Amino acid sequence: MEKIKSKGYAMFSKEGPFKPYEFERHAVGDNDILIKIMYAGICHSDIHQARSEWNEKEHYPMVPGHEIVGQVTQIGRNVTKFKVGDYAGVGCMVNACKDPNCDTCHGNREQECPDAVFTYASHDKFHGGEITQGGYSNNIVISEDFAIQVPKTADMEKVAPLLCAGITTYSPIQFSRIREGDKVAVAGFGGLGHMAVQYLVKLGADVSVFDVSEEKREAAMKMGAREFVDVSKDTEFFKKHLNKFHFILSTIPAKYDMSAYLRMLEFGGEFAIVGLPATQNLPSISLHSFVFTPNRKIYGSMIGGIKETQEMLDYSVKNKIYPQVKIIKGAPDEVAKQITEAYNTIVDGKVQFRFVIDMRDL
Amino acid sequence: MEKIKSKGYAMFSKEGPFKPYEFERHAVGDNDILIKIMYAGICHSDIHQARSEWNEKEHYPMVPGHEIVGQVTQIGRNVTKFKVGDYAGVGCMVNACKDPNCDTCHGNREQECPDAVFTYASHDKFHGGEITQGGYSNNIVISEDFAIQVPKTADMEKVAPLLCAGITTYSPIQFSRIREGDKVAVAGFGGLGHMAVQYLVKLGADVSVFDVSEEKREAAMKMGAREFVDVSKDTEFFKKHLNKFHFILSTIPAKYDMSAYLRMLEFGGEFAIVGLPATQNLPSISLHSFVFTPNRKIYGSMIGGIKETQEMLDYSVKNKIYPQVKIIKGAPDEVAKQITEAYNTIVDGKVQFRFVIDMRDL
Repeated sequence: MEKIKSKGYAMFSKEGPFKPYEFERHAVGDNDILIKIMYAGICHSDIHQARSEWNEKEHYPMVPGHEIVGQVTQIGRNVTKFKVGDYAGVGCMVNACKDPNCDTCHGNREQECPDAVFTYASHDKFHGGEITQGGYSNNIVISEDFAIQVPKTADMEKVAPLLCAGITTYSPIQFSRIREGDKVAVAGFGGLGHMAVQYLVKLGADVSVFDVSEEKREAAMKMGAREFVDVSKDTEFFKKHLNKFHFILSTIPAKYDMSAYLRMLEFGGEFAIVGLPATQNLPSISLHSFVFTPNRKIYGSMIGGIKETQEMLDYSVKNKIYPQVKIIKGAPDEVAKQITEAYNTIVDGKVQFRFVIDMRDL
Repeated sequence: MEKIKSKGYAMFSKEGPFKPYEFERHAVGDNDILIKIMYAGICHSDIHQARSEWNEKEHYPMVPGHEIVGQVTQIGRNVTKFKVGDYAGVGCMVNACKDPNCDTCHGNREQECPDAVFTYASHDKFHGGEITQGGYSNNIVISEDFAIQVPKTADMEKVAPLLCAGITTYSPIQFSRIREGDKVAVAGFGGLGHMAVQYLVKLGADVSVFDVSEEKREAAMKMGAREFVDVSKDTEFFKKHLNKFHFILSTIPAKYDMSAYLRMLEFGGEFAIVGLPATQNLPSISLHSFVFTPNRKIYGSMIGGIKETQEMLDYSVKNKIYPQVKIIKGAPDEVAKQITEAYNTIVDGKVQFRFVIDMRDL
């Protein structure tokens, strides 16, 4: 079978910058589809990984990108879920063991499978250990089981970030069974945070937003938040909100005082963590904080399984819940430069809210 | 009103040793009862506090002890819950604001009230800021609202530790709604742990016990545990129990790897922490562990409210769930020496399972 020629944007070292890059992907297998990528979102995790900030041995050239939407241009002989011309999305995973005896695959939590293959910078044991390359490119080959069906009616320019920012925030909101009227908070109002606020508002929850950037106040209120707290101006902010929230979702991508958020929960409340800062900025929480803020629970959440991702996508499109995007487009050299710049803008917390790269002309 | 003369055992500095000590308690107010103490348990927290291991400014002489049972010998004019001759218990608290507008008092979680007064080493704002003195003594004065009714049928020699070790483990088991057949674990099989095992076995849960002392295996199995894991011999123990437990209760009083326990939980499982090590030995857990062990929850639990303590006591007595105790008794100088020795035995993890001081002859 023939390998697939791809073009994309890669970092050649952790210092960057992005440059156009040509490479090959594995051939389209019997259960695979080939997607011509239309749009790819830029996630904060892309930056951590491309800059080697997660203490892992990274491989370069690296083509990041795990928020992908495009159109199916070829299908393997066993494929039933897609036909040529359909729209398909790809999130953070491209494969897992799918063994019926694997508790996590069987339980629709493929992201926890020890054999899960992530969309880029991951060893693909199902394809000879090749290192996966992500969505900042013109195409991708993926098992149909890990591709998400995207309805024709979706706003294609905006749909890509749902595949990571969407599911990452949708999943803990479902897991914690948030309902109408619940007092909830979103900490960190960026790419993930602004999706969380929209899901929570849609459910009828009473939403407070915590961020460090006064400039985002207006956007938060417009999305239906009841309150915006600029924590950079008020380091004692948590004292005014003691025991108040039923649920707090943290998307904060930097070091912060986790115990302050714990103290804002009511008895039985839950603090869900989805932001994953660079390794040298990882916060931690001591046993002491748990015991002296009793009966408030912390848990982490990591994207979501394929079944739930499909559910999230259908829900989002149906309810017109999309990210606010800023499109990067142009000639390849220009796009590469813009991605490099976008990384700095994101780290500075200055984007409202998600960069999306237009891949259609690559 | 006349102050109450008391005799007890005190540490005069954080180095010890215990010596007999005479002091005064506040008079019996209209809502108070005077209890002639029969037995007082020795809790690991007593050691942390008496040795100034919790980074707080401690006051000496200090009479520790918050596991108390005795007989009512005097009542204030408004007292309705007790009459002279009744048996009464005292746990970790002797007062709180009781304001109907206080969420925590109103919600029967007085231990979280900002004005809660702990049984010893605590400023009693309701009595001119006096420093409270605990149960290693021959009597105590307490508001009837914070005293627990002890049925005549209780095994008085064993009942005292229920007031801390009992409620501290009973409360999170209730909070996490453990049911028959749940796979659960108790980490740390000492004074608290051996109570937790008994409550869990009584509920019909499938109980594993993790401890560092092989000598405790027999006792664990006798109490109905299905499995005893000596983690000192197998530092990779958690790998054999990945994703296995619905609930883990940690009573570990030392530094340990919290993330290893998190990894032993199944999806949606809960890790409850009740042990509170010395400040210089406090473990902590990083955000990274939460995200990469997703949807497993950690929370702390701190004793329990008065209503729940009464419930626990009635349940324990009815079901004959008691600690295994080792009685300290004798002439005052001898008892003081034995308490000093008992502290070292507890720190070495060598007691099975709770020391109780017989105060009847003091």
